[in-house]
Amino acid sequence: MSNVWGSALKISIFGESHGEGIGVVLGGLPSGEELDLDFIAREMKRRAPGRGPLATPRREEDEVEILSGVFRGKTTGAPLCGFIRNKNARSGDYAPNLLRPGHADLTAHLKYHGFADFRGGGHFSGRLTAPLVFAGSIAKMILLRRGVTVGAHIRKIGNIYDRPFDPLNEEAGLLRELAALELPLLDPAAGLKMTEAILQAKERGDSLGGVVECCCLGLPAGLGSPFFDSMESLLAHMMFAIPAVKGVEFGGGFALAALCGSEARDELYAENGRIKTLANHNGGLNGGLTNGMPLFFSVAVKPTASIALPQQTVNLETMSEAVLKIEGRHDPCIVPRIVPAVEAGAALCLLDRLLFEGKLT
Amino acid sequence: MSNVWGSALKISIFGESHGEGIGVVLGGLPSGEELDLDFIAREMKRRAPGRGPLATPRREEDEVEILSGVFRGKTTGAPLCGFIRNKNARSGDYAPNLLRPGHADLTAHLKYHGFADFRGGGHFSGRLTAPLVFAGSIAKMILLRRGVTVGAHIRKIGNIYDRPFDPLNEEAGLLRELAALELPLLDPAAGLKMTEAILQAKERGDSLGGVVECCCLGLPAGLGSPFFDSMESLLAHMMFAIPAVKGVEFGGGFALAALCGSEARDELYAENGRIKTLANHNGGLNGGLTNGMPLFFSVAVKPTASIALPQQTVNLETMSEAVLKIEGRHDPCIVPRIVPAVEAGAALCLLDRLLFEGKLT
Amino acid sequence: MSNVWGSALKISIFGESHGEGIGVVLGGLPSGEELDLDFIAREMKRRAPGRGPLATPRREEDEVEILSGVFRGKTTGAPLCGFIRNKNARSGDYAPNLLRPGHADLTAHLKYHGFADFRGGGHFSGRLTAPLVFAGSIAKMILLRRGVTVGAHIRKIGNIYDRPFDPLNEEAGLLRELAALELPLLDPAAGLKMTEAILQAKERGDSLGGVVECCCLGLPAGLGSPFFDSMESLLAHMMFAIPAVKGVEFGGGFALAALCGSEARDELYAENGRIKTLANHNGGLNGGLTNGMPLFFSVAVKPTASIALPQQTVNLETMSEAVLKIEGRHDPCIVPRIVPAVEAGAALCLLDRLLFEGKLT
Amino acid sequence: MSNVWGSALKISIFGESHGEGIGVVLGGLPSGEELDLDFIAREMKRRAPGRGPLATPRREEDEVEILSGVFRGKTTGAPLCGFIRNKNARSGDYAPNLLRPGHADLTAHLKYHGFADFRGGGHFSGRLTAPLVFAGSIAKMILLRRGVTVGAHIRKIGNIYDRPFDPLNEEAGLLRELAALELPLLDPAAGLKMTEAILQAKERGDSLGGVVECCCLGLPAGLGSPFFDSMESLLAHMMFAIPAVKGVEFGGGFALAALCGSEARDELYAENGRIKTLANHNGGLNGGLTNGMPLFFSVAVKPTASIALPQQTVNLETMSEAVLKIEGRHDPCIVPRIVPAVEAGAALCLLDRLLFEGKLT
Repeated sequence: MSNVWGSALKISIFGESHGEGIGVVLGGLPSGEELDLDFIAREMKRRAPGRGPLATPRREEDEVEILSGVFRGKTTGAPLCGFIRNKNARSGDYAPNLLRPGHADLTAHLKYHGFADFRGGGHFSGRLTAPLVFAGSIAKMILLRRGVTVGAHIRKIGNIYDRPFDPLNEEAGLLRELAALELPLLDPAAGLKMTEAILQAKERGDSLGGVVECCCLGLPAGLGSPFFDSMESLLAHMMFAIPAVKGVEFGGGFALAALCGSEARDELYAENGRIKTLANHNGGLNGGLTNGMPLFFSVAVKPTASIALPQQTVNLETMSEAVLKIEGRHDPCIVPRIVPAVEAGAALCLLDRLLFEGKLT
Repeated sequence: MSNVWGSALKISIFGESHGEGIGVVLGGLPSGEELDLDFIAREMKRRAPGRGPLATPRREEDEVEILSGVFRGKTTGAPLCGFIRNKNARSGDYAPNLLRPGHADLTAHLKYHGFADFRGGGHFSGRLTAPLVFAGSIAKMILLRRGVTVGAHIRKIGNIYDRPFDPLNEEAGLLRELAALELPLLDPAAGLKMTEAILQAKERGDSLGGVVECCCLGLPAGLGSPFFDSMESLLAHMMFAIPAVKGVEFGGGFALAALCGSEARDELYAENGRIKTLANHNGGLNGGLTNGMPLFFSVAVKPTASIALPQQTVNLETMSEAVLKIEGRHDPCIVPRIVPAVEAGAALCLLDRLLFEGKLT
Repeated sequence: MSNVWGSALKISIFGESHGEGIGVVLGGLPSGEELDLDFIAREMKRRAPGRGPLATPRREEDEVEILSGVFRGKTTGAPLCGFIRNKNARSGDYAPNLLRPGHADLTAHLKYHGFADFRGGGHFSGRLTAPLVFAGSIAKMILLRRGVTVGAHIRKIGNIYDRPFDPLNEEAGLLRELAALELPLLDPAAGLKMTEAILQAKERGDSLGGVVECCCLGLPAGLGSPFFDSMESLLAHMMFAIPAVKGVEFGGGFALAALCGSEARDELYAENGRIKTLANHNGGLNGGLTNGMPLFFSVAVKPTASIALPQQTVNLETMSEAVLKIEGRHDPCIVPRIVPAVEAGAALCLLDRLLFEGKLT
Repeated sequence: MSNVWGSALKISIFGESHGEGIGVVLGGLPSGEELDLDFIAREMKRRAPGRGPLATPRREEDEVEILSGVFRGKTTGAPLCGFIRNKNARSGDYAPNLLRPGHADLTAHLKYHGFADFRGGGHFSGRLTAPLVFAGSIAKMILLRRGVTVGAHIRKIGNIYDRPFDPLNEEAGLLRELAALELPLLDPAAGLKMTEAILQAKERGDSLGGVVECCCLGLPAGLGSPFFDSMESLLAHMMFAIPAVKGVEFGGGFALAALCGSEARDELYAENGRIKTLANHNGGLNGGLTNGMPLFFSVAVKPTASIALPQQTVNLETMSEAVLKIEGRHDPCIVPRIVPAVEAGAALCLLDRLLFEGKLT
């Protein structure tokens, strides 16, 4: 596979951080879907750099040109290509021979035998999440029209926590509102503390990681497949495609490992002809399939590897040790910008599965 | 996809817990690989039920008949089918209309419109890990001949911990020795406490979950692809195919979310012409590619949903609430039996990738 | 891919001519489909060897054991595995070192580095069409219930022709009746001449090829995709998987190359709210999509390579030239037995596409 | 699949005839391949319209902008996107409601529920072969460096024949030279007659079809897979993706159906340690695998459906019959322009397979 993903929806990502641009081809979209360009622009803005004191000063408008697949404002059903031309990239910021620890500089060099575009991480840059968010915004729009809502918030940054989603009664309206917030949080009070922690890290030349929690509502029960295409497999596959993600857990996740079966059970009851669970430790999934309860999962984001503090590294040309001081413009914490990427990945995954199973009505 | 997985290696799983049997077709294997039937039998035994006081009394020999793809004791390169005929299944143990909470009974019923084979979970049964372990044992064998070792241990059961793998200097010999242990642990002292905890849970009619940690050594650097086929994506996809797995994390995983960039960094040094990392928070992976350091990850296993304690459920026929008391033979803790499944999944994933990238020498 | 085919339906074929047996795993079938075992048996019989004077004396019952995916006589939706255990195979008939011209003996030897199972062609044997016909019989059954009919006849053997399908008004009933005939022909008079020609070839120790024509009725318009998944691409892909097929053409096919545009056009008219074509040179396909007219295509089958006449060959061990006289039991003409394989391949292809596009109602 | 093709190489095609432009994303290319831009431009020119009296007067330069995957003139190994911006498109030439017989107007309308971009055939236009030829030119370049040559010629137009390739001793140099010819022919004398026939057809407002023959030299023996990924399956899949192709045959193809086994056999001999065939009726393929002899096949191209003569059609809006007189600029014969598309498709297919089997050295 490599650059293509999906069973019914085919997502091909391309581009480099400091090349001509970045883009995505989306094959298999339903036809006749009106493109809400404002909605797309808002989603792109959520991911865009350069907003507020928390972010990298690299400003990019990330304007997407739609090259195909849309006619008279609606999807045609033919492949839709979105392209973002790069501007404002300063290649001089990067010293190619000093490998940045925690980045793909070394592994890309080895995989591609020295021919990788190393400028700004090239094809491995977090910037590649921009076409993902673009594609995801289309998927979210299509899902919303069918009553499927995807929303995410910052569950924690460093050691400062937002309150978790309600695993039983989360509301679609609330999920949608999160997208309008500068910091997508359920508890606004957490925002100030998080901002402060990020600013402190920035001042120290350091960075912070965090956890993003995502919730999906309105899905039909029975979505997914046993074994290799469990919804967990598909969603995790997509989440781990996002740079900096190092963990994914569904429902109670790792915390379930410390519980007894009697504590972790989701007993059943019937209500208005539907069967529901009293708890939701399984995150809305049994046997890899949706069970009709809210589907939720969390994603661990490592602290940005690009920190201003000096780091020990190796000069690739001389193979001698060296000290690297990254001077470029970098986020002290990318967790807020990962939130729309998580939503985008989830939306693409759900839309693909609904299309594949013939359940997108 | 559903029942098929892989890019170069094609793994098709089939079968039901209480039907004729379970099996797997493996396409794309290299030819000329001698099958070490003892090795395969040992791996199957590690997963098999009915060993010791910790396990379900359902004894099955899980004897695999090889139906194709082997000639004169060696792989031919044509698809290899392994089949395990079911014996000793007591369908009477299951009451089809009383949905088992935490199982796929409800979701399978909905997905397949009432036609699923519900006996013992049918195709959703944990028993389907037997063909996975069979396929994985062949993959492990092929990898071992190329110096690639995969090993896993119980990182914890309930709240009792084994010590973790050494992220920098783990030894292949140690990984291989784990497979010979009744309880695969790095610290034998943890075994007694775990056994005791499991027996106590069993006595209470309850169950325990845990965490399995897996380590892969000897991989070439640069394996994997950016974005959709990151090694994290591929390995997590496979891990979440294993029933009861609810979380996967690489390297520091969720703990990284609480660290600063300065604490979570993997600085670099050169040694004998190879570039290594001083720490290994990234679990041997950067940008989705192996970096030559030990690759390791952890898998969260929820406590067995089949507990002897009475549980509130719904009668599918009458849609009325009912109390379910599961009488069948069930493990109070399946974590030890998940260990070979995790190794099998990892080995299949690595072999697929090595084959796909033309790196299986 | 190799041994797996399909987008929504996943077909994995395995087995060898003289090994334990041959089989197929079908993933992605709809649930609740009653298996008409008589229908399946009739289809298997159409392909089976050893019927009448035209066929090889190797008699095999080709009894399929269903190992999974069926419960109480109906498909469950989980993967269905069918297995045919080999009987009556006489390995002594084959001299491994004398390569059979026109067979895969040499290419399989090279591809698999000398480890291929060479007995009777191993995995490359025409016998592998038996699991294809089994899988196809299930697909045909499912399609028939939705009003989609697939039928094929012998268009010619050697230089003796049957009359072609009516490209505009072929009838589903006629297509179904073909399956009951010993020699599936539209013009029964052609049968005697064909039989005579085959018997003459047999007497000479020679063999004959031919052409099979296939017609598909009842398909919705708009099935298929532009470019890489045109219906022509998908159907031809499947047809060329059948051993001995060397050509595939749709509608007028190669004959169109000699016509002017004004002769080869399919002008349009409207009838009862549907748009139809006055001719059908395009075989029911425009732009790779079905247009609602009968879909038809032809398949060229080369004469059986196993002939009794002495042939010049090479001894693989000594690399010296030798004369091969094939003594085994072989058909002088496999065209009649290819007919159900063509139908099976077409039915699987159509079912896959209908499922993939969410059009199997 | 739809818009994506390939196992190791992932080819995603997008764009419309009269939209922003057309393009292709190529994932999985080897890194470090220098792009010979002149070679690419020459290949593009072979397919481009508007050359000479035989072609449509629509002139397009088909200049490809490379948007990603190339750094310092060489492939990086990351996805390569090539984009051709449309110029000189006159949408007014097309009357959307009058369906063009033999085109995808109707089927695209039905498939996409009325939302397809109908201008000039939209995504179904033959213009989409431009990105295919671009992608193929890169594949050809990479193959040539490994000694694999792909070349094609016009085997016939209408009823005027060029001589066929030599199935046993075709030369790579000759294949390469064909690309430099205005009309790629082995027998230059045929060119005059073909030109005359095309001009006559043009004058009559009519069109001609033909046959393209393609030959591939330098392939390793044993390439391909048994059954579903036979080289015939893969190549035919790709050929039938090219608009206007209605037939594909390998080696003797349909003519084999009329021969006896004794006439159609490829007896074997050894020469310098390699095993060769005395004839090549199988087109270099046995059991779906290359046998080391020249691989060759033919492709039937129907006469252009866009003819100037009046045609009976249906008005989609009123569903009443109408007469269509196509006024736009159209080729009386697209066979010469299909030649580079056939080569491109074959080259992509071979490169994919060499990469997938780890045989691209």
